Amino acid sequence: MKNQNKERNTRAVKVKKIMIGGGFPVTVQTMWKKPLEKIGKTLLKEIRELADAGCDIIRFAVPTIEEAALLGELQAETEMPLVADIHFDYRIALECMRQGVAKIRINPGNIGDENRVQEVIQAARDTATPLRIGVNAGSLPAGLRDEKDIVAAMLKSAEIELELLEKYGFRNVVFSFKSSDVATTINVNRRFREQHDYPLHLGVTEAGPRIPGIVKNTAALYTLLSEGIGETIRVSLSADPLDEVIAGREILRACGRTVKGVNLISCPTCGRTTFPVRDFYEKVSARLNALEKNISIAIMGCHVNGPGEARHADLGITGAGKYALIFKKGEIIRRELIENAYTAFIEELDRI
Amino acid sequence: MKNQNKERNTRAVKVKKIMIGGGFPVTVQTMWKKPLEKIGKTLLKEIRELADAGCDIIRFAVPTIEEAALLGELQAETEMPLVADIHFDYRIALECMRQGVAKIRINPGNIGDENRVQEVIQAARDTATPLRIGVNAGSLPAGLRDEKDIVAAMLKSAEIELELLEKYGFRNVVFSFKSSDVATTINVNRRFREQHDYPLHLGVTEAGPRIPGIVKNTAALYTLLSEGIGETIRVSLSADPLDEVIAGREILRACGRTVKGVNLISCPTCGRTTFPVRDFYEKVSARLNALEKNISIAIMGCHVNGPGEARHADLGITGAGKYALIFKKGEIIRRELIENAYTAFIEELDRI
Repeated sequence: MKNQNKERNTRAVKVKKIMIGGGFPVTVQTMWKKPLEKIGKTLLKEIRELADAGCDIIRFAVPTIEEAALLGELQAETEMPLVADIHFDYRIALECMRQGVAKIRINPGNIGDENRVQEVIQAARDTATPLRIGVNAGSLPAGLRDEKDIVAAMLKSAEIELELLEKYGFRNVVFSFKSSDVATTINVNRRFREQHDYPLHLGVTEAGPRIPGIVKNTAALYTLLSEGIGETIRVSLSADPLDEVIAGREILRACGRTVKGVNLISCPTCGRTTFPVRDFYEKVSARLNALEKNISIAIMGCHVNGPGEARHADLGITGAGKYALIFKKGEIIRRELIENAYTAFIEELDRI
Repeated sequence: MKNQNKERNTRAVKVKKIMIGGGFPVTVQTMWKKPLEKIGKTLLKEIRELADAGCDIIRFAVPTIEEAALLGELQAETEMPLVADIHFDYRIALECMRQGVAKIRINPGNIGDENRVQEVIQAARDTATPLRIGVNAGSLPAGLRDEKDIVAAMLKSAEIELELLEKYGFRNVVFSFKSSDVATTINVNRRFREQHDYPLHLGVTEAGPRIPGIVKNTAALYTLLSEGIGETIRVSLSADPLDEVIAGREILRACGRTVKGVNLISCPTCGRTTFPVRDFYEKVSARLNALEKNISIAIMGCHVNGPGEARHADLGITGAGKYALIFKKGEIIRRELIENAYTAFIEELDRI
């Protein structure tokens, strides 16, 4: 795949088949929301659906040693790189590495003293497992928790870890700096990038449910990615992992990166609308989401908006009284009664 | 209300009780999605709900002269400034002004020749009605439609109108430049602001359904507002007007503007979660949305995230095994069985 990144060059970190940084395209992550159960068909099916929507990496909370084994089993069954999210107990990190998990995320704020972090680093070196040092504004180490300047405190927390990592010559590392505040997230990542060439995993944490969550994540991630900062992203939402992946993909698309799948243009509808835009979208969205073609599809409500305002769309549909008009690049190619619109549209979609 | 804008100074345009520009706080708009029917209690109730969520102005499509009269009747019954959206037929604009509608939006691309625009300007001057010149990338006047440089073509379209407006000494005008493309929207607004001090209405048009729509709007509007560009905003989504208003309010909040209502922090949940974050949010969201207090509320899934990571929240709740912990500013104040969590949380909310 052609490199579309505008990033300043960073180190490259290999997470199984996926590259983070080094000029490779920005990758999209999500996090599993349920406890790690026995690997079943449902779990593997859900992972495939996430991959189809554009997910490159999935992270799992691993709160117990038992679950580390389950994650290892799952990693053996899927090509998707899996990341273990470790808090408090460094021994779980060690076990995950033994189990062949693709990457380990530790939180320096709660993993414990230097000796424990050192053991994790050694094991990562021995097993060639990349680490993510995930600094969160809300869970800094005790000594930094009461700093007034939160950005400085987060950077300080990273510097402490960096010193250890570099002492061991271990550079197979991604960093992240997350806050639930947009400005903090932007500033801390900018400042880290000025100093270091480690790849950055971007995200806004505890961003909330769908609407505020997508707003906060987009504000921070679009700003940073537009400056060439950020090599992998995770939109965290109190919503389904699939929504996180779609939002991540759409942020990359908004930044002008080439992403697979359909660019959907649809009007907000208003008093002029004669075509059932939202119902029609619900009906076709699964088909559109599964399309790997890099095309624009327009679903418009009336003759003011479509086909004129959507003349760049590869395929579009709009209403005109009791008819639906189907158009390609602004040219009307079919007129059908609205009740026949779905069938006609799918026929045209299959022809592209 | 204190001016929190970082805007360069623009002219002020008065839309009934609402000021756009002139250093006043950025306002939030939405557009009515249904045909204008006889004014009923439902319509007025829906307008009140939108106002409670932070909506300052509502626009209606007015495709016929008959509907202009209906909009006038509605404007007489509500304090909410109503805007008439006019395409093709300038006589509908004239009728809306006679009816006392708060503001008129015309699209220079389809309103017709200079004489018609001139008549609209004269009527606006006579009735002291502000106008919005709404330039859309997809519906430029015939002579500009095939220009290669879309930003230049949009600006050119505005300049043609501006010449007319200034000939009549009419400056009671807001401009907008919308595209479904994020970069185009950002660039055209930046360039207009370099040249003119008219207030700008920001939006990304045909942005799509909720997830891509919120992403595209946030990317463009957050970027522009952070540069001090934009005096009123409308997030257009193929979704409910209430979603548009909530998204608009959240974009302003992300920009650090003071907006009324609760700042919700909630974790994305993961395999560690013991508290039903999303169900609990669904249960309390109506209560939280109606709160006019400017406070932070946290709904967290486990002891890793809350109360520690949400210690700045004025009130929060999280899980610990079968219990829910309620906390204020990081201090646990109550422990309740999860089944009693809702009642206890609402009690504490009422105490704030």
